[in-house]
Amino acid sequence: MPAAIQRPYNFSAGPAAMPETVLQRAALEMLDWRGSGMSVMEMSHRGKEFGAILTQAEADLRTLLAVPAHFHILFMQGGGIGENAIVPMNLSRGTCADFVITGSWSVKSHKEAQRYCNARVAASNAESHHTQLPDPTHWKLSKDASYVHVCTNETINGIEFHALPDLVALGSDAPLVIDFSSHVASRPVDWRRVGLAFGGAQKNLGPAGLTLVIVRDDLLGQALEICPSAFNYKTVADNHSMYNTPPTWGIYVAGLTFQWLLQQTEGVLTGVAAMEQRNIAKAKLLYDFIDGSAFYENRIAIDCRSRMNVPFFLRDECRNEVFLAGARGAGLLQLKGHKSVGGMRASIYNAMPLAGVQALVGYMREFERLHS
Amino acid sequence: MPAAIQRPYNFSAGPAAMPETVLQRAALEMLDWRGSGMSVMEMSHRGKEFGAILTQAEADLRTLLAVPAHFHILFMQGGGIGENAIVPMNLSRGTCADFVITGSWSVKSHKEAQRYCNARVAASNAESHHTQLPDPTHWKLSKDASYVHVCTNETINGIEFHALPDLVALGSDAPLVIDFSSHVASRPVDWRRVGLAFGGAQKNLGPAGLTLVIVRDDLLGQALEICPSAFNYKTVADNHSMYNTPPTWGIYVAGLTFQWLLQQTEGVLTGVAAMEQRNIAKAKLLYDFIDGSAFYENRIAIDCRSRMNVPFFLRDECRNEVFLAGARGAGLLQLKGHKSVGGMRASIYNAMPLAGVQALVGYMREFERLHS
Repeated sequence: MPAAIQRPYNFSAGPAAMPETVLQRAALEMLDWRGSGMSVMEMSHRGKEFGAILTQAEADLRTLLAVPAHFHILFMQGGGIGENAIVPMNLSRGTCADFVITGSWSVKSHKEAQRYCNARVAASNAESHHTQLPDPTHWKLSKDASYVHVCTNETINGIEFHALPDLVALGSDAPLVIDFSSHVASRPVDWRRVGLAFGGAQKNLGPAGLTLVIVRDDLLGQALEICPSAFNYKTVADNHSMYNTPPTWGIYVAGLTFQWLLQQTEGVLTGVAAMEQRNIAKAKLLYDFIDGSAFYENRIAIDCRSRMNVPFFLRDECRNEVFLAGARGAGLLQLKGHKSVGGMRASIYNAMPLAGVQALVGYMREFERLHS
Repeated sequence: MPAAIQRPYNFSAGPAAMPETVLQRAALEMLDWRGSGMSVMEMSHRGKEFGAILTQAEADLRTLLAVPAHFHILFMQGGGIGENAIVPMNLSRGTCADFVITGSWSVKSHKEAQRYCNARVAASNAESHHTQLPDPTHWKLSKDASYVHVCTNETINGIEFHALPDLVALGSDAPLVIDFSSHVASRPVDWRRVGLAFGGAQKNLGPAGLTLVIVRDDLLGQALEICPSAFNYKTVADNHSMYNTPPTWGIYVAGLTFQWLLQQTEGVLTGVAAMEQRNIAKAKLLYDFIDGSAFYENRIAIDCRSRMNVPFFLRDECRNEVFLAGARGAGLLQLKGHKSVGGMRASIYNAMPLAGVQALVGYMREFERLHS
C-alpha cells in the first residue's frame, strides 16, 4: 500500500477529490479483489464477482439516498452532457418540455433538448448574470410539458436550490427532472417532488465516465424511435444496467464511496444527513469569511449560494496569479475559477474535510494581510 | 504495493485480463500521480496533469497503431453497443449502409442501424451458423452506401478477418467501418482500407467505459441533426475528446497499456507487430491441440479462426461443469462459453502470456486423459 503522507487539499470542481480511504482500498484490491485473483477491471461484467459489486452498490445507494422502490437506479455512460440529449430522447415524446435557466449547465441542457422537442424557457435568471434563482411562483410552466428541467446546483456559477420546487403546488403535473450532478449525496432528496434525477459521478460519487440516473418507473417506455438502445432507460432498466458493458471500475469505486458515506456520522445523524450538516458548516465557514472581508467577494444571492461550489473574486484581480501560486505552495490545489466566470472557485464536496476549508480560509486571511 | 503473488490466468472475453505491470503501476500511483498530490481520478480534466496524460496516450496510440495524420483519435463513452447507433447517426446521412453479417455483434450493429438509415445486408454467414466468413467477392455492395460495416473479430463466435476487405477492389467507394473491439492492437491495421474503426476498450486496451474511435477526417461533419452533441464525432474531435468530461481513469489505464505494448519485442519486431507474432503462436498452440484431440472440438473454418477468442466444446457436454470447476481449481478462470454459443471459450488477448495458454492446454490434456 502506498505510504500514508499528508495529501494536499484538492478543490477541483470535477473530477474532484475522493475520500482517501476509498483510494487506499482501491489500490489495495487492484491486483486481487477479495481473493478472486482478478482486478475489478478484469472481471466479466456477467460473472458472480462483478454481479455482487453491482448489486451491493445499487442497494447501498438506495439506502443512502432513500430511493423509493418505484424508482429505478441506472448506471450509465455519457455524463451530464450525454444526458442533456438522453433525457429528451426518453421523456419528451417529441412534444414540449419546460426549462428553468439558472446558469451554464441549464443553458446547455435547454439548447441540446431543442434537437428533440419544443424546449421552452419557463424562467431565467440571465438578467442577474445567474446570481439569483428565479422565484418559482413566477415560473411560466406549460400545461402540456412532458417534463420540467431544473439544474439543482449550478457547478460553474455556484448557485443551488436549497429545496426542490414543488411542481404540483405550482399547478403543473409534469415530472420534475433534476440535474443533481454536483450536489448528489450532499443532502437528502425529496423524491415525492422528482420524476428523474441524473448526474455525472465525478463530483461526489466516483470517477468520470459513470453516469447515475434515478427514474420513476412510470416514465420508462416512451423513448423516441431514434433513441439509441444503449441509452434507452427502459432497456437499461430491464437489463439491470448491463445492456451494454457497464463502466465496471466506476461502479466499483462509487460503491466504495457509498459505503464510506453510509459510515459517516454527525451526532445522531448518519449518511447524507450527516454529510449535509458537515457541508452546511464548511460552506458557512467559507462564505462568512468572504462576506467579512473587503478583499474577497462572492456575488451570489445569500439564499441560494451553493454549498458545493464557492466562486469568489479578489477585488483586485491583478493578484489572481499570485494568489493561485501561493495556494499551490500551501497545498491548496485547483482553485482557479471556470473560464466563463473568472476569479476563483473552491469546490468543497463531501470528500473535502472541514480541515481543508479551514486551511483555505487560513491561507486567504494571510494573503489578505500581506496584500492589503 | 500489493505483494507479488502468482495470479491465476483469466480467460474472460471482456472485461479481460490486463498486463500485471499496468495494474501495479495503477495501484502505486493511486493516491499520488507523479508528485501531483492527486489520484488520476481526482484531477480536473482541464488541468495540465490530465492534459499530459491524454496527450501522451493519444500520441502513443498513434505510434502503436501507425494511425495516419488524417485520422482523428477520439476517446468516447458508450461502448460498442453505443457505437452501433453513433456510427449511423454520424455517417449514414439517413441514406443507406451495407452490413456484412458474420456473428452476434454484426447482427446487433445491423439491427440498431435500422433506426437511422436503410441498413442493408450485403452478405451473411447465418446459414453456416457463423462458422465461415462470407467470401468478399460475393458481397452485394450497394452503389450508394454511405458506409460498409464489418465486425473484424466476432468475440462471441470466435471468427476473424485475417485481412481487411479491400472495398475499392470490390468496386465500392464507400468508407469501410470496422468494429475492432476485440482484436484492436493485436495486429497492425491497414488504414488505407479503413474509414472508421471503433472499439470498446475492455478487451485489449483498458477498463470498460472507454470507447476508442479512429476516424478519417473527411467523414466528420455530416451527422444527423438528432445526433447528441456528446456523440457527434466532429464535436468530439474539435474538442480533443473533452467536449464532455472524458472517462479520465480509463484513458490513463489505456495509456499505461499503450506504453506496455510499445515496450514489447519479439526478435526484431516491436509493439503490435511483436504482439501479432505472439498471438499467432498462442492461437496455434491451442487450436492445434484441439484439432489433434477427439475429446474437444472447434467449429470455425480454419482460415478464419479468431486469434483472440477460441470457443471450443467438449464432445461430451455432460462434463462441462466438471471441466469448469477443475479449471478454476487449477487457476484457469472465466472459461465458460457465451450463453448463445454454449461450451467453452478461451479469450487469449494481448495480456495473456504464452504460459497461460500452455497451462490451459496442459489442463485440457490431463482432463481428457482422466475422462476418456
